[in-house]
Amino acid sequence: MKNIGIFLNTMKENSYSYGNYIIDKLFDIDVNTFTTEEINAKLKNEKVRVDDQYLFEKCDCIIVLGGDGTILTAVRKCSYHQIPVIGINFGKIGFLTEVEEKDIDSTLERLLCNDFTLEKRMMLELKLDESSDVNYLALNDIVVSRGPDSRIITMDTYVNGQLIEEYRADGLILSTPTGSTAYSLAAGGPIVEPDNNVIVLTPICPHSLHNNRSIIINGSNQVEVIVVGKGDETSVASVDGQIFINIEINKKLTIKKSPIKAHLIKFKKNEFFDILRHKLSHQK
Amino acid sequence: MKNIGIFLNTMKENSYSYGNYIIDKLFDIDVNTFTTEEINAKLKNEKVRVDDQYLFEKCDCIIVLGGDGTILTAVRKCSYHQIPVIGINFGKIGFLTEVEEKDIDSTLERLLCNDFTLEKRMMLELKLDESSDVNYLALNDIVVSRGPDSRIITMDTYVNGQLIEEYRADGLILSTPTGSTAYSLAAGGPIVEPDNNVIVLTPICPHSLHNNRSIIINGSNQVEVIVVGKGDETSVASVDGQIFINIEINKKLTIKKSPIKAHLIKFKKNEFFDILRHKLSHQK
Amino acid sequence: MKNIGIFLNTMKENSYSYGNYIIDKLFDIDVNTFTTEEINAKLKNEKVRVDDQYLFEKCDCIIVLGGDGTILTAVRKCSYHQIPVIGINFGKIGFLTEVEEKDIDSTLERLLCNDFTLEKRMMLELKLDESSDVNYLALNDIVVSRGPDSRIITMDTYVNGQLIEEYRADGLILSTPTGSTAYSLAAGGPIVEPDNNVIVLTPICPHSLHNNRSIIINGSNQVEVIVVGKGDETSVASVDGQIFINIEINKKLTIKKSPIKAHLIKFKKNEFFDILRHKLSHQK
Amino acid sequence: MKNIGIFLNTMKENSYSYGNYIIDKLFDIDVNTFTTEEINAKLKNEKVRVDDQYLFEKCDCIIVLGGDGTILTAVRKCSYHQIPVIGINFGKIGFLTEVEEKDIDSTLERLLCNDFTLEKRMMLELKLDESSDVNYLALNDIVVSRGPDSRIITMDTYVNGQLIEEYRADGLILSTPTGSTAYSLAAGGPIVEPDNNVIVLTPICPHSLHNNRSIIINGSNQVEVIVVGKGDETSVASVDGQIFINIEINKKLTIKKSPIKAHLIKFKKNEFFDILRHKLSHQK
Repeated sequence: MKNIGIFLNTMKENSYSYGNYIIDKLFDIDVNTFTTEEINAKLKNEKVRVDDQYLFEKCDCIIVLGGDGTILTAVRKCSYHQIPVIGINFGKIGFLTEVEEKDIDSTLERLLCNDFTLEKRMMLELKLDESSDVNYLALNDIVVSRGPDSRIITMDTYVNGQLIEEYRADGLILSTPTGSTAYSLAAGGPIVEPDNNVIVLTPICPHSLHNNRSIIINGSNQVEVIVVGKGDETSVASVDGQIFINIEINKKLTIKKSPIKAHLIKFKKNEFFDILRHKLSHQK
Repeated sequence: MKNIGIFLNTMKENSYSYGNYIIDKLFDIDVNTFTTEEINAKLKNEKVRVDDQYLFEKCDCIIVLGGDGTILTAVRKCSYHQIPVIGINFGKIGFLTEVEEKDIDSTLERLLCNDFTLEKRMMLELKLDESSDVNYLALNDIVVSRGPDSRIITMDTYVNGQLIEEYRADGLILSTPTGSTAYSLAAGGPIVEPDNNVIVLTPICPHSLHNNRSIIINGSNQVEVIVVGKGDETSVASVDGQIFINIEINKKLTIKKSPIKAHLIKFKKNEFFDILRHKLSHQK
Repeated sequence: MKNIGIFLNTMKENSYSYGNYIIDKLFDIDVNTFTTEEINAKLKNEKVRVDDQYLFEKCDCIIVLGGDGTILTAVRKCSYHQIPVIGINFGKIGFLTEVEEKDIDSTLERLLCNDFTLEKRMMLELKLDESSDVNYLALNDIVVSRGPDSRIITMDTYVNGQLIEEYRADGLILSTPTGSTAYSLAAGGPIVEPDNNVIVLTPICPHSLHNNRSIIINGSNQVEVIVVGKGDETSVASVDGQIFINIEINKKLTIKKSPIKAHLIKFKKNEFFDILRHKLSHQK
Repeated sequence: MKNIGIFLNTMKENSYSYGNYIIDKLFDIDVNTFTTEEINAKLKNEKVRVDDQYLFEKCDCIIVLGGDGTILTAVRKCSYHQIPVIGINFGKIGFLTEVEEKDIDSTLERLLCNDFTLEKRMMLELKLDESSDVNYLALNDIVVSRGPDSRIITMDTYVNGQLIEEYRADGLILSTPTGSTAYSLAAGGPIVEPDNNVIVLTPICPHSLHNNRSIIINGSNQVEVIVVGKGDETSVASVDGQIFINIEINKKLTIKKSPIKAHLIKFKKNEFFDILRHKLSHQK
């Protein structure tokens, strides 16, 4: 690896010094580092190159300093180029971060000698309109939900054109296996081992008891959601809880597995259930 | 009864003719009827008196034509004067409506000869600020929830000053027994027989599994909720899903049983579980 | 206090030395202690009087060395005489135990100078047959469930004679507020503050989604359960998970609040939610 | 098709005449029918051949008259020979039955001219002991649960040797996608589209909130369950809720996808969600 991206959440000041530490260390051994202008406004490091495009499109890998949220952002930004991402965790234990602060040196070492595996994770793609060619990519989830001023919305939901349910609910979560431990879990959904080819559909506070359960859809199927109404309802789609898009009533949204995968750098093996147990039994 | 209020949802045109039928019939036997200007703009009936204040403050009872939502509105509007309310159901079976369209004649008869019982239902009162003397009254529920642009909020929740939980969730529902079959049920809460002196606290999509259950609080206790944060979070309190109030971060909301009760006119006895079974097994 | 009972779980050997410590200490200051023959077969202490009847019927209080299960047993055994009980916890934090091992000395001191409050907790009484006058008393719960050789049973369930539901399920839990954090919680039920006058009805694995929620019954009401069938079904009632009784098909069981209360000795105040938070976030 | 099996539940007398109708009709057109001795003791039909072995090992297909339970039995009995099965529904709508009573004639017609598709459904295989070569096959689920005389058991649960959880619960359900709408649903599990390659693991009344969710395991993985204890616990494995096997404490059970599939005859396409909606919203 000769070109490594550095990404962090500029709100978290405690990661700045680690960012600079990595940049300096890589500079000394002639590895180029890249970051965004916004980030370097915080780091103020002259040894890093400020080049957003190179960072998200051409790097050999991106080192993310932060929690699962920061990784979600990084993955989405580089998703079309499927650049490998490794997360160094600052804060609570996460599902997507791979190592801890104290492992920075060994992490760099292993990265530089390509001593890792790549785990490819399913991403979902959201299309707001059949004719449009704008897609949104999510590593965790696409959520369709009521706007701020209405209490309940009706969502006619189909899989490959066949009606699943006419949900009356606060919203509907379409989650990847990766996202099953995030918002979908909070809404009552099951936990899914990451390597399954499924989409988890979880209604949020559905009005009826009889459809108050998650549905596991085959990941090769396409889900369609239409928020139906008279036109005065408001409705929002959110992507990984980070991008919010107002959506039109009575228009068909399609959500399906993207051909693009997230590429996560992994040092350990089979640790999903270890993290799960630790995380769920120590939650606050 | 000499003075009867007529209340309906002006969006539901199918109730207009029934409103006029009642007004005409009562006029013929010298019973005064009262309604709002907004409603009579639809009914266009010269035999009804347009007098909002008399309607919500002095009538002997209010006949509501509509569903549970319309009754919630009527009850809140007349709550300080605790005027008896009877709901004639238009639409799906409800928990608060007492009779059906076809029973209009017998309903009027029984009302006029005082052949009914009054069921007094707990209401909750919300105070936004200790120093303020503005209260909001709810027959179903007070809901504290995240604003439209944030995904999760932290709500430190106390009962009589003792910490219950620091919920990280989409929101928190504080429900009366009456409201237990409404939004609280959708969010996973239990069903509560109406005559219990309890407040049901149900978190909405809590981040942790360990506090992902409703808590039944003694109705004589006071619940306090503080949405804590750095100040950029937005948060909303809603009253019966009908009134929405922006709330300030780091300020203590208090919710407790109101000394005021809703007065519901009842013809039948002990039918709570019959309605419950019917309603839950026929939901769409 | 001149006469103190000593009760412990004879399976837990680590409590023996503490039992002897208490007996010896009380003997030195001329306080009588009482225990059962079974327990003293383990303690082998000559300073304690072996007198089951005195222990459960006449003592001033009973000191229980053990966890919640041991307290449930002690409370049931002395329930008709409503003898105050204090639990010294050996093992995981419990809802019913009041102090820890290390607090033994201060506990004895406070007991001897009556420096405590009594918390009276609701108990349920189960009658297997209207004509019978044998009752079973439970501090946590009465559970009606399928026998070992059938998968599902039908339980027609009434409150004061009014049908609630015809549950098709593995069983039905009728819990006190105290029991709400035990088996009922595992089956999906809500948490109830101990001082509420309610009975929690929670179905176990109900066949239908529409009745898959707990119901909070007014504690002054009587619940009736009939396991209906052709006669070849088997069904069991259990009392606090400790007493198991085969029950007859098509016979009406009645469960209601007992006039008898459990008397728990309390040193601390208002600690329910502190224990709850600690317990639920540290469960294994 | 020249050789068709006839299978029915001998407890359901209303299916006898239909059984005879089919046998007679097929006899007239020179198609052989086969059934068991037990069944023909009820049908008393001389035109059917009583030959259990032929029925479950060599027929071209088996027509099952009955509900989902009867189909589960038939499928298990013929599973090693993967004989196609078609269910004619007597009673409530089912997930496994394909046609209704009234469709008998058209069903025979379509069978005889091979006008159908075969849907292959995942089955699970249970091994009680690594050295044993006795397997149990299930179309719906394998359930490990406490015996009748204990309240809770501890189940150390692994996937491919990696610890998932040490469940303390009433039991653990391992379900195929087909079984996800049966017992697993009652215990809180999600609904799984039939064609997914997953195993659903759902704890029954787990003691802790933090593991109170289903886990979706990749169907190519092997699950291992050890009921751990001191030896006095009792524990039972059940297969499709129909076969019950006492299991030994501290011995490893393995559950994995069988190479054998159930072969269901299908006339319709993509009707899973139609049945689901109908079934869940009409449950009693």
